[in-house]
Amino acid sequence: MGKEQPAVTAQALALRQREISVSEFFTKNRHLLGFDNPGRALLATVKEAVDNSLDACQEAHILPDVFVEVRQIEESRFRVIVQDNGPGIVRQQIPKIFGKLLYGSKFHTLKQSRGQQGIGISAAGMYGQLTTGKPVSITSCSRPGRPAHYYEIQLDTERNQPIVLKEAEVEWKGEGCGTRVEIELEGRYQKGRHSVDAYLQQTALANPHVDIHYLPPKGDPMRLPRVVDALPPDPREIKPHPYGVELGLLQGMLKAAKGQRLSGFLCGSFSRVSRATAFEISSRAGLKPEAKAHLVLGEEVERLFRAIGQTKLMAPPTNCLSPIGEEIILQSLRQQIQADFFTARTRPPVVYRGNPFLVEVGLAYGGSLPADEPIALHRFANRVPLLFQQAACAITDAVLRIDWKAYGLSQSRGALPGGPAVLLVHVASVWVPFTSESKEAIADYEEIVREIRLALQDCGRQMGRFVQRRKREVDAERKRSYIEKYIPYIGEALQEILDLRADRRSLLEENLKNMLERSRS
Amino acid sequence: MGKEQPAVTAQALALRQREISVSEFFTKNRHLLGFDNPGRALLATVKEAVDNSLDACQEAHILPDVFVEVRQIEESRFRVIVQDNGPGIVRQQIPKIFGKLLYGSKFHTLKQSRGQQGIGISAAGMYGQLTTGKPVSITSCSRPGRPAHYYEIQLDTERNQPIVLKEAEVEWKGEGCGTRVEIELEGRYQKGRHSVDAYLQQTALANPHVDIHYLPPKGDPMRLPRVVDALPPDPREIKPHPYGVELGLLQGMLKAAKGQRLSGFLCGSFSRVSRATAFEISSRAGLKPEAKAHLVLGEEVERLFRAIGQTKLMAPPTNCLSPIGEEIILQSLRQQIQADFFTARTRPPVVYRGNPFLVEVGLAYGGSLPADEPIALHRFANRVPLLFQQAACAITDAVLRIDWKAYGLSQSRGALPGGPAVLLVHVASVWVPFTSESKEAIADYEEIVREIRLALQDCGRQMGRFVQRRKREVDAERKRSYIEKYIPYIGEALQEILDLRADRRSLLEENLKNMLERSRS
Repeated sequence: MGKEQPAVTAQALALRQREISVSEFFTKNRHLLGFDNPGRALLATVKEAVDNSLDACQEAHILPDVFVEVRQIEESRFRVIVQDNGPGIVRQQIPKIFGKLLYGSKFHTLKQSRGQQGIGISAAGMYGQLTTGKPVSITSCSRPGRPAHYYEIQLDTERNQPIVLKEAEVEWKGEGCGTRVEIELEGRYQKGRHSVDAYLQQTALANPHVDIHYLPPKGDPMRLPRVVDALPPDPREIKPHPYGVELGLLQGMLKAAKGQRLSGFLCGSFSRVSRATAFEISSRAGLKPEAKAHLVLGEEVERLFRAIGQTKLMAPPTNCLSPIGEEIILQSLRQQIQADFFTARTRPPVVYRGNPFLVEVGLAYGGSLPADEPIALHRFANRVPLLFQQAACAITDAVLRIDWKAYGLSQSRGALPGGPAVLLVHVASVWVPFTSESKEAIADYEEIVREIRLALQDCGRQMGRFVQRRKREVDAERKRSYIEKYIPYIGEALQEILDLRADRRSLLEENLKNMLERSRS
Repeated sequence: MGKEQPAVTAQALALRQREISVSEFFTKNRHLLGFDNPGRALLATVKEAVDNSLDACQEAHILPDVFVEVRQIEESRFRVIVQDNGPGIVRQQIPKIFGKLLYGSKFHTLKQSRGQQGIGISAAGMYGQLTTGKPVSITSCSRPGRPAHYYEIQLDTERNQPIVLKEAEVEWKGEGCGTRVEIELEGRYQKGRHSVDAYLQQTALANPHVDIHYLPPKGDPMRLPRVVDALPPDPREIKPHPYGVELGLLQGMLKAAKGQRLSGFLCGSFSRVSRATAFEISSRAGLKPEAKAHLVLGEEVERLFRAIGQTKLMAPPTNCLSPIGEEIILQSLRQQIQADFFTARTRPPVVYRGNPFLVEVGLAYGGSLPADEPIALHRFANRVPLLFQQAACAITDAVLRIDWKAYGLSQSRGALPGGPAVLLVHVASVWVPFTSESKEAIADYEEIVREIRLALQDCGRQMGRFVQRRKREVDAERKRSYIEKYIPYIGEALQEILDLRADRRSLLEENLKNMLERSRS
């Protein structure tokens, strides 16, 4: 490691400066997307495809039927196939959706959806291509009765552009419309907590309106029939709330608002800003409401920004969210879990950084759940199961901070509580803040952790009451059976003491038994 | 939340599909870059600018003098100023380096450097712009004696392009060449573990050749003079190692290798492939060495990929790394820490995923370090201090898995050991796998954790021997002082028993004292 290399000049350094494409970046950093080991990559691929199917069916108001197959090609190579009955994809869009990172429809819209980044499925295809050299195959029919289009797409990682290797018209094998995605990748098929099976079961838990057929590489097909026959309510797109917009963003928005007056800009760009409120904000900032928006510059923008912060505004609309709902959470839990007690809580929506969000919790206790193990914690964000990075997640953080002993579970410091329970926690938002692009753990925003804790406490209290009541019943029963055992002896003793006849003694014992029976019911 | 919204057709969904620029993506996801709270953002900004200064000085063989100032503008607004004596930046490059994400010189080169992603400083500028509306100011002189260039740059977040707001020639206030970066941002100035002060002190620890002047917002200026007068050895750029290249990447490389023959392609694209080895690989794959590289397709690529895996190859060259070195680690530790015992270990380079890396550890024990607290753990990657996300880091993982009780510290399960010690761990690589773009924690690759553990055990053993020896010395001293206390009584007793004269007794006591003295030395 000598110093024989010549010193580099500024000019030479300049020659090395280059653009890095997004796809190059994520190829090198694929662990950021969750594709850093074969087991996780397989699961991430299934997840991305299923997320897209469910989002599309929701938009098109179609009850989703999803077919998932994981086919083993070689020891470490699998083909993931996901087919849905959704609206299909218009053929011109297919190459970019699957062959270009940071391309999508949900990034710029503020409403709850499973996908949000425009990366997911292209990253899965890119990983498949990277490890097997094979392209992604897409078949999609967007007009019923008409032929479907078949594409084989590769991603040009240097330029982040799709390459169409093959294109054809084919027959759509299914009813109506739909999309079928096939990705071949190096993978590992795991069982247990991080398996495709577990992922699909939890998906059904949070989305009981979905019908899932699953064909694993080995063993019997799995069917998760829909439990609920209605789609969840549609979330509505909202405009950004003024409290969530930073100074620099406001500056950029104003600059781009050519042809708009300031008051019209404020009303039209944000939620909860009426014409009157726009006037109020403008005058507080010392600006004319009819001023041209794109000419508000420099220090005026700062004044406007401060004025917004000082003006009282309603919280943002919350119809952009689509909670599962307490009734359906209970239905779902009862469907999948053998337990004695169920409770659920959907908290009202609140806001973090101007973004509406809400928390829901479902809890099942007792029955055939194992009593000597830590509880099973199922985390969800926007109805999608989060299977990895449990320790890094705000949900886990909140769970660990609850005193579960008060609610009937056991607990060591810094660990999940123990007991026969299953805990479902769902965070829904127009923008879920994940800790990384692999979207497996929610970032620790105070407002979010606080809401999760409150929901956990609501359900915990219910469970605590049930556990207490059951404990009292068990104790009472034990006392009664203890007493029952001794009734003949009591009878004998009383017979002697009171010099009772045999039939009087029998009657006495009978009465005591009856009293015991009555106290039981 | 009603269902009155009409069902959306595939055609309508298609109209919503859009490109998302990298800068839009990271604006929305800025927590991924470490800019999610004002305290962390301030620190990240200083770090990015200092990293760039140190990398540039290294390339230009200049001993770095770095001036850092954090100036308070308002309660939550600060101006970060970093100036160096490096080679400067050629003016045409300034806009893109500071005003465009994913633009840089280190991403495509395989050698150890502090920056690697092409994001850092543009992200800092983007955050400043987002929170204050102010542009980044850059002054740079790349030719000594000539005027410097001054730029004010904004980042167009929609298109990820720089906007030059101002451009001028100015006088360079300093000797030779250099660069001065100023960013105004919303921030919070913290003290303690996550402070700018701590960051700069740790930077000096791992880079004792750097001279740092620091002007904080309040209080006295801080000076960290250089401890070593020579630059570290230059890391050399290497070619990728064949074992680290995936099938899909190989496919892409072949396709782009127009005009090359297969053997020439293999020799020239990879490290450790001689002409003979290239021939061996080709024949193992059933391919002609003189075949045209870009015509190797489909199944042939798979055969080539497998053939590479089956061919015995030397490990990659390791002169791409620049360890601090045991001597300099010790010098650095002695300079900053008052302790009784110092040890250091630089392990030989190894490989993860075809990427060379190595681990170094430094350990200081005793002296004025607090004995009742957990040890101080200082983590470094490519000579840059990692201040956040300690729990998520592979280094911490490795530290927690060592049995420190065997080496003289106290330890509770799952927690850092306790005792008067400071532990420095440095991982150096051509590509450090971070857990997120904020580059604060190293991802848990087995090979890396293993090397860290081995290095920790090497140092731990040394420390253990020191602690044992010191314990024995302390015990022996205690015994001796105990005995010493009783010499007069022994003298008295012996005088009586042996009927000694006074002078004989004094001589006896003198002899005993001398024996004691001799046993001490």
